[in-house]
Amino acid sequence: MSITLAHNNYGKSSVRLVKVARQPDRHDFKQLTVGIQFEGDFESCYKYGDNTRILPTDTMKNTVYAFAKLYAIEQIEDFARQLTEHFLTDNPQLSKVRVDIAEDLWQRIPYGGKPHATSFMPAGGEQRTAAVTGTREGMVTEAGIDNLVVLRTAGSGFENFIHDPFTTLPETEDRILATAVKVTWTYTNDDIPFGPYWHGVREALLQTFVEHESKSVQHTLYAMAAAVLERYEDISEISISMPNKHCLLVDLSRFGLENNNEVFVPTGEPYGLIEARVKR
Amino acid sequence: MSITLAHNNYGKSSVRLVKVARQPDRHDFKQLTVGIQFEGDFESCYKYGDNTRILPTDTMKNTVYAFAKLYAIEQIEDFARQLTEHFLTDNPQLSKVRVDIAEDLWQRIPYGGKPHATSFMPAGGEQRTAAVTGTREGMVTEAGIDNLVVLRTAGSGFENFIHDPFTTLPETEDRILATAVKVTWTYTNDDIPFGPYWHGVREALLQTFVEHESKSVQHTLYAMAAAVLERYEDISEISISMPNKHCLLVDLSRFGLENNNEVFVPTGEPYGLIEARVKR
Amino acid sequence: MSITLAHNNYGKSSVRLVKVARQPDRHDFKQLTVGIQFEGDFESCYKYGDNTRILPTDTMKNTVYAFAKLYAIEQIEDFARQLTEHFLTDNPQLSKVRVDIAEDLWQRIPYGGKPHATSFMPAGGEQRTAAVTGTREGMVTEAGIDNLVVLRTAGSGFENFIHDPFTTLPETEDRILATAVKVTWTYTNDDIPFGPYWHGVREALLQTFVEHESKSVQHTLYAMAAAVLERYEDISEISISMPNKHCLLVDLSRFGLENNNEVFVPTGEPYGLIEARVKR
Amino acid sequence: MSITLAHNNYGKSSVRLVKVARQPDRHDFKQLTVGIQFEGDFESCYKYGDNTRILPTDTMKNTVYAFAKLYAIEQIEDFARQLTEHFLTDNPQLSKVRVDIAEDLWQRIPYGGKPHATSFMPAGGEQRTAAVTGTREGMVTEAGIDNLVVLRTAGSGFENFIHDPFTTLPETEDRILATAVKVTWTYTNDDIPFGPYWHGVREALLQTFVEHESKSVQHTLYAMAAAVLERYEDISEISISMPNKHCLLVDLSRFGLENNNEVFVPTGEPYGLIEARVKR
Repeated sequence: MSITLAHNNYGKSSVRLVKVARQPDRHDFKQLTVGIQFEGDFESCYKYGDNTRILPTDTMKNTVYAFAKLYAIEQIEDFARQLTEHFLTDNPQLSKVRVDIAEDLWQRIPYGGKPHATSFMPAGGEQRTAAVTGTREGMVTEAGIDNLVVLRTAGSGFENFIHDPFTTLPETEDRILATAVKVTWTYTNDDIPFGPYWHGVREALLQTFVEHESKSVQHTLYAMAAAVLERYEDISEISISMPNKHCLLVDLSRFGLENNNEVFVPTGEPYGLIEARVKR
Repeated sequence: MSITLAHNNYGKSSVRLVKVARQPDRHDFKQLTVGIQFEGDFESCYKYGDNTRILPTDTMKNTVYAFAKLYAIEQIEDFARQLTEHFLTDNPQLSKVRVDIAEDLWQRIPYGGKPHATSFMPAGGEQRTAAVTGTREGMVTEAGIDNLVVLRTAGSGFENFIHDPFTTLPETEDRILATAVKVTWTYTNDDIPFGPYWHGVREALLQTFVEHESKSVQHTLYAMAAAVLERYEDISEISISMPNKHCLLVDLSRFGLENNNEVFVPTGEPYGLIEARVKR
Repeated sequence: MSITLAHNNYGKSSVRLVKVARQPDRHDFKQLTVGIQFEGDFESCYKYGDNTRILPTDTMKNTVYAFAKLYAIEQIEDFARQLTEHFLTDNPQLSKVRVDIAEDLWQRIPYGGKPHATSFMPAGGEQRTAAVTGTREGMVTEAGIDNLVVLRTAGSGFENFIHDPFTTLPETEDRILATAVKVTWTYTNDDIPFGPYWHGVREALLQTFVEHESKSVQHTLYAMAAAVLERYEDISEISISMPNKHCLLVDLSRFGLENNNEVFVPTGEPYGLIEARVKR
Repeated sequence: MSITLAHNNYGKSSVRLVKVARQPDRHDFKQLTVGIQFEGDFESCYKYGDNTRILPTDTMKNTVYAFAKLYAIEQIEDFARQLTEHFLTDNPQLSKVRVDIAEDLWQRIPYGGKPHATSFMPAGGEQRTAAVTGTREGMVTEAGIDNLVVLRTAGSGFENFIHDPFTTLPETEDRILATAVKVTWTYTNDDIPFGPYWHGVREALLQTFVEHESKSVQHTLYAMAAAVLERYEDISEISISMPNKHCLLVDLSRFGLENNNEVFVPTGEPYGLIEARVKR
């Protein structure tokens, strides 16, 4: 019998980092969570315990902190590229490096009618994300948003679906549509103003979510993806995952009350999960 | 040997509720989590399994949903009072009812430069809370904020503390002060515009957090509490809990780099926990 | 107007600790999470930023690690007492010290029919807990169990309860009773073999849970508490908290199927919460 | 510009289910969490809101509960196959169905020296998992274990690794190796006694973890995978993911104490993540 290492990867996850950039008139504050994964020729390591080709995950972590000092970290896509390039260059045993960064978004606390120079609070529950994958052939940059929570109380229906012996869901032309969007998109090149593009994609997603006449989660998800691809030629594809966070109408007739789509139970589980990748 | 029931309480926790108020020109959206606890003469129930004095927790839940239809739910303090009064009135076996409500805060999604009429997203990670305690003597109303995350990168020090053989913390006149404030306050009466007061307390807390010359978490916590009591005579006392969410300076000297208070590891555990109750 | 500090406490939470005791023929492995809280005369600190009476929470943490080296940590109640006594003795500004310890329970991995000497896996999802409160008058020792998950599929009913206009729960003489017990008890003195007592209390709780003819959660909770007090005279009181983790019967009649108490949806929220303190 | 749906899937996640099998002399208790995902020709749905090809995720949920009544659910692999076959057969629009099941493991509470007939407690924190993927060509069955937490305090080192300018990790021949194994394996056919095989794989993993002379996580992970493939010819490949849950040695020298590998801080983040797929 012959046993083979078909695939392997290793790295460091959840490296948490705060960077304070001390400008003359204000501080800038960034909070990132970085993950790094290596692939390469590690058969001797797995099979025989040969560590001479292994850069420890502890060193990956140290590198993140050192680079946080050495580089400005304005756009997380750039920081992910700097880390990826470093690891590929210095480690010939690697065939692939992937760096994932999630940024917690902070805003300045309002004070005296203006944003305060050195005090901050979270800008919302969503995260800005970036992922750079580097091989000997080059680097691919993805950006994304995690946990963009949105809901609509009008303009969303779900009708004309298949009915089988286990179907009990009533058709409806008016339901609450609530979700927490997770989205990633891929850039065709790296000569991109990553910050403005990220805000532009977010705006396109929100605008489409708000105005789309929704016949299903699938229908609205596709419209959101298409809106992004139509807006930016530099984006080659986009993947969207939308859990359907059901709000169930409460049966108040048991108490002699009518529920005109007013009182709901928001549920966490089970949840529908709708996903697609759309490309040009 | 004699065994006695020294204290008892029972109720329903985590009753999740969404209310959509369908106005002519817009929808209003509220999301609440309600908890209810009863105290009273339940000795026969605990000792002998006599259920004739027990209103089931399932009925408490149903009552929340029915009342969500019957009442407008504009201020959660009022809704907590309506529920408390109902349970006390209809259940003579009760000596005490406590209703806790946590409100997830939502804002309208901006669309075309204006807030959209029927689309929503979270307004931040904090929750507005209310707690009403009712007895045969009357009701007491508390309000609060959970998880008000704030941080400062300037104007915060910690010096001149006790040094013992296990002390290694360096004194500092410049550290990051990060916390997630949990606060509750008690009203002296119920003739209060609960919404404006809640926003006013939140503003006083934030303003004091931003501008206080902080010598310790304790020092700033007290200043925040005092600011609220000074602003509102109708508030008799305030309790604040502030975990110290430490940001640790990374030692970059190992890599020949200087870290001028720029690169930190934000840590979740262990954390300092500073608490006080301040009254007039 | 006069503003007063009505209550204050501060300390360190979630100090995580692993201790490996290297015996000649085996290793012993302990994993603890320690919390420490101080009360005392800290008015000048809160009001004026005077830190000269403050032992930093960082020093509390260091003390835990140093004491983990200096002491054997066989029973967490003893370790909590050692820490409490140290802080009280060395810090005259304190009126009260509370040390909470939660122990993650580990067992040896079976290997070749025997427990292995140096390999471990969790012993279950529950935690053993201890809490020592020390003042200038002395120390009180509590022990406990967190998250003791148990369920019964027979011998549990809930009937003859109050019906009001919002009651829809059917009476039942046969339901699933599922809970995650949280329990703490107080010792009358400190000359206790803490380990055997802890296991004895746990056994009494489990045995009573299994054999009690349950007419309600309240009824069974009380029987469990009484069984502990009857077994150990050195325990003066016991507090039990039992969330009712409802398993809801699925309505299969919609599919032409009968559900004879076979198929359920286990739910996390909302949940009943039943609590009592029982003393002799 | 032409925009295309490159990939899509939809389904229901986190369908929670309890099944009580009422035998003459005892009850059997199963707790499952089921997820279902469909792939197929849904372009008209995504692009145009045509729902006529969509079986609602609510119906998927209902089907799980109905099948829980209709089938015995002895092995989750079989239940996943029954669900997969049903959906494929009745829905010609599908190209692929995937059913994932995670089983929470329960054991009988000991009572009077024997396992009790109708009372249960968790058997540990791990989950048994199964995944069946069905297409028009056939079904593939995978089994697995989630969250198998194990640790060793002896026989584990990490030496001779790459040192670069950011390396500070000391080489060690004696460290704590702690992890939470996630593993899935693929069967070559479906004529397998799934229960005994699952227990056999688990035993092979544990035995290898305990006895392997570990030079790295990679080294031990591979040995564990190989042991499974050597034991069962009906398993074609196995994927293992092992987070390295670091226990950091505390520096006690600051307090004049020596730490001979006795006192550690167990950390959750950051963590190493080591993964591989091994096949024959």
